[in-house]
Amino acid sequence: MTTLLSQLTQLADIHADKVSPALITVAGWVRTKRGSKKFSFIELNDGTCAKSLQIVIDASIENYSEVEKLTTGCSLKIDGELVLSPGKGQKYEMQAKKVHIYGFADPETFPLQKKEMSLEYLREVAHVRPRTSTFSSVFRIRSRVSTAIHRFFEERGFCYAHTPILTTADGEGAGESFKVTNFDFDKLPRTKDGKTDFSQDFFAEPTMLCVTGQLEGELMAMGLNKIYTFGPTFRAENSNTSRHLAEFWMVEPEVAFADLNDNMQLAQDMIRFVVADVLKNCSDDIDVCVQKTQHDTREYLHMALERPFVRVSYTEAVDILIKCKKDFENPVFWGCDLKSEHERYLCEEHFKSPTIVFDYPAELKAFYMYLNDDGKTVRAMDILMPGIGEVVGGSQREDRESVLIERMNHLGIDTQSMEWYVCLRRFGSVPHSGFGVGLERLIMWITGMSNIRDVIPFPRTPGNCKY
Amino acid sequence: MTTLLSQLTQLADIHADKVSPALITVAGWVRTKRGSKKFSFIELNDGTCAKSLQIVIDASIENYSEVEKLTTGCSLKIDGELVLSPGKGQKYEMQAKKVHIYGFADPETFPLQKKEMSLEYLREVAHVRPRTSTFSSVFRIRSRVSTAIHRFFEERGFCYAHTPILTTADGEGAGESFKVTNFDFDKLPRTKDGKTDFSQDFFAEPTMLCVTGQLEGELMAMGLNKIYTFGPTFRAENSNTSRHLAEFWMVEPEVAFADLNDNMQLAQDMIRFVVADVLKNCSDDIDVCVQKTQHDTREYLHMALERPFVRVSYTEAVDILIKCKKDFENPVFWGCDLKSEHERYLCEEHFKSPTIVFDYPAELKAFYMYLNDDGKTVRAMDILMPGIGEVVGGSQREDRESVLIERMNHLGIDTQSMEWYVCLRRFGSVPHSGFGVGLERLIMWITGMSNIRDVIPFPRTPGNCKY
Repeated sequence: MTTLLSQLTQLADIHADKVSPALITVAGWVRTKRGSKKFSFIELNDGTCAKSLQIVIDASIENYSEVEKLTTGCSLKIDGELVLSPGKGQKYEMQAKKVHIYGFADPETFPLQKKEMSLEYLREVAHVRPRTSTFSSVFRIRSRVSTAIHRFFEERGFCYAHTPILTTADGEGAGESFKVTNFDFDKLPRTKDGKTDFSQDFFAEPTMLCVTGQLEGELMAMGLNKIYTFGPTFRAENSNTSRHLAEFWMVEPEVAFADLNDNMQLAQDMIRFVVADVLKNCSDDIDVCVQKTQHDTREYLHMALERPFVRVSYTEAVDILIKCKKDFENPVFWGCDLKSEHERYLCEEHFKSPTIVFDYPAELKAFYMYLNDDGKTVRAMDILMPGIGEVVGGSQREDRESVLIERMNHLGIDTQSMEWYVCLRRFGSVPHSGFGVGLERLIMWITGMSNIRDVIPFPRTPGNCKY
Repeated sequence: MTTLLSQLTQLADIHADKVSPALITVAGWVRTKRGSKKFSFIELNDGTCAKSLQIVIDASIENYSEVEKLTTGCSLKIDGELVLSPGKGQKYEMQAKKVHIYGFADPETFPLQKKEMSLEYLREVAHVRPRTSTFSSVFRIRSRVSTAIHRFFEERGFCYAHTPILTTADGEGAGESFKVTNFDFDKLPRTKDGKTDFSQDFFAEPTMLCVTGQLEGELMAMGLNKIYTFGPTFRAENSNTSRHLAEFWMVEPEVAFADLNDNMQLAQDMIRFVVADVLKNCSDDIDVCVQKTQHDTREYLHMALERPFVRVSYTEAVDILIKCKKDFENPVFWGCDLKSEHERYLCEEHFKSPTIVFDYPAELKAFYMYLNDDGKTVRAMDILMPGIGEVVGGSQREDRESVLIERMNHLGIDTQSMEWYVCLRRFGSVPHSGFGVGLERLIMWITGMSNIRDVIPFPRTPGNCKY
């Protein structure tokens, strides 16, 4: 049987010096072409790495008249000789022997051009973004970060747990959720008193998309000890900013028998593991991003590896912010929510280090966080990174049933519908902690991309769900 | 600062012989307890592995009266000496020095009992399933399979691509989809002619949950070469069977410049990689499953590693099924859909090997599959495994714009709304192939669990979306 792929050499292998000069076959897409009646020079990229390969095509080859018609975006397979390049900035080039053209890309209608295009324009043609230098680099970094996260947790014996996307549990306080239904909107069934009759819907009750996997993650950790979730999460918030998406990916570890300090250490280890991995394996891709954004993220990435993670209580942090006499837009007082300007001042100007703020006022945080003995702060922690601010939010969970119920009642959260969650504390309750990391924020920090729509292949925002 | 976790020794490390006999601290839950006035014996499990650790508690310890009250499900931390066990079937046991009880589990109300419980009963108390021997083993296997899949693709240079969960693209033919909305059902906005006014919904058009990531995966492969998706997928089918879920996880690789034979090879390599990894790393967990189901899956797993993957065309397969004269429930003829009974006959009785059936009649398959020169078959393939039947379905994709459009028109699929997909073939089109694997089917095959509800932590089926 014939096979195609097995005959091909990947550009990633060529640029990683895994291929010796020889007759080989490559395939990919034309990034740019220049040429004359005698020679054509093609920058071919196959998507496996940031670097392209220069293909030199002599006019003597059979279908040179076809080759002359090639433009940005055309797809090719080339048999040729890989040789050391006399040109600067590239080790190898290829002398073509045979060129097979799979498909042309009419420059009149093809959305990508040879010249530099704006990120805004590329967002409008997201179906061809992965073919550009910038976005293929961003998406390779995203991939590497994701698989590094899996490796990190697997190496430490964590169980990868799939918490549900469809849920009837309200992740209280985490944000507004989308409704999921099988109803025909034109024929909504009604109860006798005129309300929507959910008993006739697919799940027989109002169903939503998850806003977090944490609550179910706690449930899993109560049997499997150390678990993490890594999946899509949803918020139906009508925020059209450069930092909000309606669909994004979250990593949420949850660890039995771990207190807040264990939790801080785990998050710090995870960030360092990911950063070291990406710096080592995605260097060319980071270069591409830096060139596009003109913002060198490596300074901050190295800070995460080399500087200590400073730990400071919320109370101390507020003190520092008040004493610094800086003119913040949002006033600082004990009990205030720390805004981005405060967070960045702390880690970028004051400590010049990754900074972990812990023990926040209970009123600022969710119902499930462990209440400290002072009765007014909870064992919460946020990790602030120079260059972006908060990237991790976590806490030790309230594992005392009576304290949890009291707090839920205080906040008007229905304990009945959350009975399964409460009863995790009734039977063999243990101290446990966990945190959440938004994947996109991590990628923004690493790539320097300033709009969250540019670090996810298919951004979902109010009014936009194309593809 | 105090930490808890860092003081603990994990049972997985003890049973992997990474710990020398010494004074250590362990923490976990009581699986069973038996005892007398002089001694108590506790089977403690901490969720990190299938095996428990026997804790021997002498009546001389301070809080022995509390220890006597311990029952299944209670949570403990124990300081003690790890010693070689005189008992059979266990290398180590622990002589407790100090027992800290985190939480009791009143046997009157705790849903788990010491005695054997049915899978059906445990489904009703899914919030405590992860604490049972069977389900913690199933979920650890699920985790290992998932991370093995990530490792497989990462080692081969694939880009992990996050295709969207929310979509306006209809994965034609893949099944019914759930609707997603932000509407208040009691105040649905209407257009002038009385229809639902989707322009006022969150995304300003009808939005669904993905039934596949393939179409967007193809888009990514057109720039990144070799990609895979691994995420949740949804079907709003009202099927209450042991094989259907409304929410399940799928792996979908998509490879540029790969034909159907490359695709078969990739799927075969992936299955073997996963099986070898699980056999090596989850042996104790497989034992637990085999004991519960009384069905030894290892026979079939070894078949996947050791027997060749037979490749047979659909036409040949139908010939074999007709000639075998077996009395199938569903009649066999050229053009018939192969049912489970046919698939299992082919791989379990005829070939006694994993079997790849390819080149199916176009009428049986989706619009995006490459049409063969015979004009009536498409480059599709299904992989049938002894023990379960189909686990992989894939195809080479139609990369010729005109053929694709003709086929879409023939099937009445709107090319306008799928313009972005069609135009992948207009600009630098290349041959490409991919397949899909349902994670849950793979786990059922590996664990021997016969109901799909028992291989996912939170099963979603008609009328059931608890937690």
